[in-house]
Amino acid sequence: MGKGGEGDVNMAAWLVGVNTLKVQPFKLPPLGPHDVKINMKAVGICGSDVHYLKTMRCADFIVKEPMVIGHECAGIIEEVGNEVKSLTPGDRVALEPGISCWRCSYCKDGSYNLCPDMKFFATPPGHGSLANQVVHPADLCFKLPDNVSLEEGAMCEPLSVGTHACRRANVGAETTVLIMGAGPIGLVTMLAARAFGAPRIVLVDVDSHRLSVAKQLGADGIVQVSTNIQDVTNEVAEIQKTMGAGVDVTFDCAGFSKTMSTALSATRSGGKVCLVGMGHGEMVVPLTGAAAREVDIVGIFRYKNTWPLCLEFLRTGKIDVKPLITHRFNFSQSEVVEAFETSARGGDAIKVMFNL
Amino acid sequence: MGKGGEGDVNMAAWLVGVNTLKVQPFKLPPLGPHDVKINMKAVGICGSDVHYLKTMRCADFIVKEPMVIGHECAGIIEEVGNEVKSLTPGDRVALEPGISCWRCSYCKDGSYNLCPDMKFFATPPGHGSLANQVVHPADLCFKLPDNVSLEEGAMCEPLSVGTHACRRANVGAETTVLIMGAGPIGLVTMLAARAFGAPRIVLVDVDSHRLSVAKQLGADGIVQVSTNIQDVTNEVAEIQKTMGAGVDVTFDCAGFSKTMSTALSATRSGGKVCLVGMGHGEMVVPLTGAAAREVDIVGIFRYKNTWPLCLEFLRTGKIDVKPLITHRFNFSQSEVVEAFETSARGGDAIKVMFNL
Amino acid sequence: MGKGGEGDVNMAAWLVGVNTLKVQPFKLPPLGPHDVKINMKAVGICGSDVHYLKTMRCADFIVKEPMVIGHECAGIIEEVGNEVKSLTPGDRVALEPGISCWRCSYCKDGSYNLCPDMKFFATPPGHGSLANQVVHPADLCFKLPDNVSLEEGAMCEPLSVGTHACRRANVGAETTVLIMGAGPIGLVTMLAARAFGAPRIVLVDVDSHRLSVAKQLGADGIVQVSTNIQDVTNEVAEIQKTMGAGVDVTFDCAGFSKTMSTALSATRSGGKVCLVGMGHGEMVVPLTGAAAREVDIVGIFRYKNTWPLCLEFLRTGKIDVKPLITHRFNFSQSEVVEAFETSARGGDAIKVMFNL
Amino acid sequence: MGKGGEGDVNMAAWLVGVNTLKVQPFKLPPLGPHDVKINMKAVGICGSDVHYLKTMRCADFIVKEPMVIGHECAGIIEEVGNEVKSLTPGDRVALEPGISCWRCSYCKDGSYNLCPDMKFFATPPGHGSLANQVVHPADLCFKLPDNVSLEEGAMCEPLSVGTHACRRANVGAETTVLIMGAGPIGLVTMLAARAFGAPRIVLVDVDSHRLSVAKQLGADGIVQVSTNIQDVTNEVAEIQKTMGAGVDVTFDCAGFSKTMSTALSATRSGGKVCLVGMGHGEMVVPLTGAAAREVDIVGIFRYKNTWPLCLEFLRTGKIDVKPLITHRFNFSQSEVVEAFETSARGGDAIKVMFNL
Repeated sequence: MGKGGEGDVNMAAWLVGVNTLKVQPFKLPPLGPHDVKINMKAVGICGSDVHYLKTMRCADFIVKEPMVIGHECAGIIEEVGNEVKSLTPGDRVALEPGISCWRCSYCKDGSYNLCPDMKFFATPPGHGSLANQVVHPADLCFKLPDNVSLEEGAMCEPLSVGTHACRRANVGAETTVLIMGAGPIGLVTMLAARAFGAPRIVLVDVDSHRLSVAKQLGADGIVQVSTNIQDVTNEVAEIQKTMGAGVDVTFDCAGFSKTMSTALSATRSGGKVCLVGMGHGEMVVPLTGAAAREVDIVGIFRYKNTWPLCLEFLRTGKIDVKPLITHRFNFSQSEVVEAFETSARGGDAIKVMFNL
Repeated sequence: MGKGGEGDVNMAAWLVGVNTLKVQPFKLPPLGPHDVKINMKAVGICGSDVHYLKTMRCADFIVKEPMVIGHECAGIIEEVGNEVKSLTPGDRVALEPGISCWRCSYCKDGSYNLCPDMKFFATPPGHGSLANQVVHPADLCFKLPDNVSLEEGAMCEPLSVGTHACRRANVGAETTVLIMGAGPIGLVTMLAARAFGAPRIVLVDVDSHRLSVAKQLGADGIVQVSTNIQDVTNEVAEIQKTMGAGVDVTFDCAGFSKTMSTALSATRSGGKVCLVGMGHGEMVVPLTGAAAREVDIVGIFRYKNTWPLCLEFLRTGKIDVKPLITHRFNFSQSEVVEAFETSARGGDAIKVMFNL
Repeated sequence: MGKGGEGDVNMAAWLVGVNTLKVQPFKLPPLGPHDVKINMKAVGICGSDVHYLKTMRCADFIVKEPMVIGHECAGIIEEVGNEVKSLTPGDRVALEPGISCWRCSYCKDGSYNLCPDMKFFATPPGHGSLANQVVHPADLCFKLPDNVSLEEGAMCEPLSVGTHACRRANVGAETTVLIMGAGPIGLVTMLAARAFGAPRIVLVDVDSHRLSVAKQLGADGIVQVSTNIQDVTNEVAEIQKTMGAGVDVTFDCAGFSKTMSTALSATRSGGKVCLVGMGHGEMVVPLTGAAAREVDIVGIFRYKNTWPLCLEFLRTGKIDVKPLITHRFNFSQSEVVEAFETSARGGDAIKVMFNL
Repeated sequence: MGKGGEGDVNMAAWLVGVNTLKVQPFKLPPLGPHDVKINMKAVGICGSDVHYLKTMRCADFIVKEPMVIGHECAGIIEEVGNEVKSLTPGDRVALEPGISCWRCSYCKDGSYNLCPDMKFFATPPGHGSLANQVVHPADLCFKLPDNVSLEEGAMCEPLSVGTHACRRANVGAETTVLIMGAGPIGLVTMLAARAFGAPRIVLVDVDSHRLSVAKQLGADGIVQVSTNIQDVTNEVAEIQKTMGAGVDVTFDCAGFSKTMSTALSATRSGGKVCLVGMGHGEMVVPLTGAAAREVDIVGIFRYKNTWPLCLEFLRTGKIDVKPLITHRFNFSQSEVVEAFETSARGGDAIKVMFNL
C-alpha cells in the first residue's frame, strides 16, 4: 500500500444495480487535516446492506448512482492528517459511520444522530466502507483495547443500535425487559440490556431456532409466538407469566402490527415501548389503550456516542459478541457475492463478516 | 340541611339506564376522621358523563348498578372529620375526584393516577358528585383563592387534563405546540400550554366554528382540515407553514387514525406527540417513520397533583376558563335531563355547568 | 407469645439517658386494619443509634423521653389486621422504618422520604424496633425471598441508603464511581453502585484496614489519604490516576470539609457529587470552582421505594451483604450493652447484629 | 472599510496592562469557508471585562500577552465565507462568543460549553470583540429579528447567562424563584426566570437602590439584607414571608458564603440552588443540612444554545432588556477608558454599551 495522498486508488465493493455487487477500484477522497486513512480489516453485513442490494433503497434513501456498500467496520490506521493527535499509524480502530454537520441545532444540542446533513457510510449519495481503504474523521475512529479484536470492533456498529435503544428506554438495574424478535438486532439489544443491568430479559420470536440461540446467549425466558394477530391476548398472558414480573420496557425489534400490538399490551402501565424494527411502515395498533395506561413509545434513529461504551462493554467482558459472528468471507468478487447471499438467506447466519 | 352524620340522605343524579337519569335520594357514606362533607355548588358535565349516559360504559368501565354521575365539581365545606386541620366549614373548595390507595408501588412512586385500586367519582362501581352533598377526603379538597369562583373551581377538573398533558410532554417557554381537535379538551390543553409558556400554539379541527372559538381564546394559528386520510400530507404542510417553526409537541385531543397520523408527521424529529383523545381504540398510523425520527409518543391517564397549579393559574389570571362555560342549569329532574342533552348535542356548547 | 391484641406487652431496648440502655417492657400499639404484628428476629445497630446513645440527639432530633431504639430490622409475621391481604402469619419480612402521611405534597409527588409528618422508628418521639414485637403497616413489610435470610433482610435498611444515593446520582453501567469513606455506609454504597452497574469504583479512606476490607468486598481501586487539607491537590491526582478515567460520580460518605473538597475537585466537569455522610454540619469548600465546572451536588435523606430493589439485589446475588455482618449478639440486657459498645468502638466491627 | 481578506487591519481595544486599555490596530484572521466578517456595532461591558482590566486575570485565566477585550456584541455582516448559506452581507447578527471543538465527548454529548478546547472572545489567549471588525463562525452569528436592535442583540450574551441558569434549574410555570443579588446578572436572571414562566420572584440585595431597580423591572418582592452572617436565620424568615410560598429554586448571583448560606436555608426541601455568582472561591456553608433536605446545588459555566431562545424572548417582548442599558459610549480611546471606569464604579450603571 503506497503512501496515502489525494487520489489513491483501492478496491471496494460497489452496488451497481439490483442484486449486483462488483469489487472494483475506488478513488479515495483527500486526507483532510483532521482525517485518518484506515486499512479496513473487518466489515460486517447489515440487514440494511442486504435491503439495498435487493431493492436499491432503504426507507427514504434511494441508490441512484453506483455506491460502495458497507458500514460495520474496523481497521488499522495507515496515515493521519496534520492536526490529528489522538491516533497514530498502526492503531487498531472501530469506525462510527456517520459524519454530522456540527452546525445545526440537533448537533449542538446533543442529538447529532438527528442531524439533517448527516453523511453516513453507504447511505446515498455517500459511499460505504467495504473497501481496502477508507478516509474518515479521526474523532469517529475509536482505538480498540488490546483484548478486543478487529471483528469485535466491527460489531460495535450493530451493538450501538442496541445500546442506543437501551439508553433511549433508560434500561438499568431495575428494568425488566421484553424483546420482540430474536434476529441480529434483537440479540444485540438483549446483550446491551444485560450490560445495562437488566435483571430479567424475555425474548419472543416465531422461530424456534432463533429462540434457542437467544437462550444460549443469555435470555432468561423465551416465548414462541404465531404470526396470527388473534393470538395476541393469549401470547401476552404467556409472556407476562414467563417474565414473572411486570414488563418495564419492551423493545420491538421486528416492527410489525402484531409485534407492536403485543408490545403495547404486554408492557406495564407507566412502562415504555421502544420501536427498533422497521417491518411495517404503517401499523394497525391499539394505541389508545396503551396511552391511557401511560405506556410511552420511543423510537430510535441509529445511535450517538455509543462507541466508547460498546468498547468498554467488550473490554470488560460485559458483552461477548463473538458468538454472533457465524460466517466469515474474504474480500474477493466471488466471496462478496456469496457472503451477501449467506446473509440474505438468514437461517443460522446471524452476522456475516468480511476479513480484508 | 341537618348536621352531617352517618346516614344523611340528600338528592343526587343517578344514571339508572341508557339515556336515563333520575334525581333521587342518595345516602351519604360516614364521615371518616380525615374526610369532609361538602355542599356541592357547581358541577360540570364531561364528555365521559355523556358517554356513560348513552352507552352505560366508558373504555373498560361498565355501569352494572345505578350510579350517581358527575365528577367536575366544587362546593362549600359543611362539616369536617376529627383529624382535619386544613379546612373548616364555610371554606370554598374544588374537588379532585380520585382516591388512590397509597399502598401500591404506583402511589408510592409518584404515579398515583395509575393506582390499580383507584376509587373515582362516577367510575363504576363508585358514585359521582352531581349531588347536593358528598363526603370526600380533605386532602383532595383544595381551597379556592378569593378571586376564583365555584364554577371556575369545578373547571379545575377538565383543566387538569390539559395540565397533566402539558407536564407529560414537558411544555415550557421553548415549546411550540400543535393541538389536534378544538373541542373542550383541545381548548383546555391550549389554555394550559399557554400558561406553561408555549410561545406559539396552532389548533386544527374539521369544524370552522370550533376553530373560531379557539382563535378567540388565544390560538396563534388555526388550520381547518378534512376527515379524509388522503389529505394528511397537504394538511401537514399547511400546519407547518402556519406554525412558522418546527412543531415541538403535538397534542392529539381527538384520537383518530387521521389525527394521529397528522400528529406524527407534523412533529419535528426529536419532538413529542401526546395522545389525549380517545376517538379510536385501534389506529392505523405511520409509527415506524415517526420512531425513526425519534418522535416520542406519550399518553395520559387522568392527572395527578394538578389542582394546586390549576388554582394558581386561575388566581393569577394566567388562565381564564370563564369563556368555556357556555350553558348553565339548575339541579332539578328536568334541568338535569336538558343539561345532558345540551352537552350531548355539542354545537356551541363547550362546558355545561350545574349550579346547585 | 400470646395472641396479639391491643395492649400486648413485650420487651424492648429503651434509651433512657446518655449511654444508658435498658431492656424493659414495651406496650404495643393496637393493631390497625392495615397493620401487622411482627416477631422481630434480626436487628442491626446503625451509627445513628450509637449517636443517640452517646448524645441523646441526632441532627435536629432530640430524645426528651425514654425511647425504644433500633430501626434496621426483619422478623416473622405473627398477626395481620383485617384488611391485610398481602401477608399471612409466618411470612418472613424486612421492615421499612418510616410511615409517611400520604396527604402532603411530598408524599403525593413521589418524595415521601421528605414528608414533614414522617413517623420513623427510633426518631423522637417515635419508638424503634429493637423489641420482641412491633406493630407496623403491612405495606412497609416486604416478604423475604426464600434464599434471603432474616439478617440479610435487616441489612436492607443500610443498603437502602446506598441504593437511594445511587438513584439520586443516577449511577449506571456508564458511571465511574469514587467513594470517600470506607465505613459501613461507604461499603453499602459501593455494593449498591456495583449492583447498579458501575464499571469502576475507587474507595478512599484514612484507615488502611477499612480500605483492605473495601478491596476484599470488590473495590477496583483504593487510595489512602490524610486528614490534612493541604494534601487535597496531590490526593486528587492520585485518586484520578487510580480511577484511570474521569470520575463521573463521587459519594462523600464521610461529610467533612476535606472529603467534600476532595470530592468536588476529583469529579469531572459535568459530573455529580452526592453528599451522604454527615461529619460536619458546616463545611469550608471550594464550591465556586465546582459550580463553574457544572459539578452538581445532590444530597439524600433516608430513602424511598428501596426495599423491593434491595431484596431483588440480594435474591439474585448481585449484592452479598453477609460479609458486612461482623458481630452478633442476643437480646439480653448485658448483650445489648455489649453490642452497642462493640459498634461504637468501630475497629473491625462493620455491622453489629442482634438475633432475637 | 475595504473588502475583507486575510490580513485586513482595523482598530480594537487592547488590554495591555493593569488598568490600561489602548485602542490600536488589530489584524483580522483569515476568513474561513464557514466564517463571516462582521462590522461590530454594539458591544457591552461585562463584569469579567472589568475584572481582567483591574487584575489581568479572571478565575484561572491569566492575561500574559496584550489581548483585545470584549465579548457581548452584535454587528452587521460585511462578508461571508464560501460555504456560508445562512447569512448574507447586511444581515444584523448577535454573536455567541465561544468556539468549541466539536470533537470531544462534551461537544458530542450536548455540553459544548464544557469543551476543554473552547476558544472564547477575550479569554486568554483568545482575542475579544471590542473592535471595528471581527471574523467569526457563521453558525455562531444569529440573525436579529426586525424588531430587535443591535444593542438588544449584544444583550443576548448576559441574558444567556440567566437563560442557561434557568434551564439548569429547570425553571417553569410552577417554580417560585429567589435571587440573591440584584446586580446585572441577578437582573438578567430575573428577566429570564419570568420569561420561563416563574409565577413569583423575590430579589435580595444589600443595596436599596439596586432593589428598587429590581422592583421596577418586575420583581414580585424584594428583601434588603445585611452582610452579617449572623443575620441569616432572620433574613431567611423574612425572605420566606415575602415569597409567601416555598422557595423552589434559588439563584445565588453573588456567590459569597453568606448569600449561599441564605440560599441553602431558604430553599424548600427537594428544591434547587443554582450558583451563578463567583464572589468567593472558597465558601463556608451549611452543606450537610441542605443535603439532608435534598436541596440540590447546580452550577453553570457560561451557556449553550441560548441565542435563538433569547432572540425569541426579545422578539415577542417576553423580555425587555432596554432598561438595563444605562450608559452609552463611542469607540474612541478616551471614551473606552471612561466607559470602563463607569462600569467599574457601579452605582446606577447596570449595562455600559459601546456604539461603534
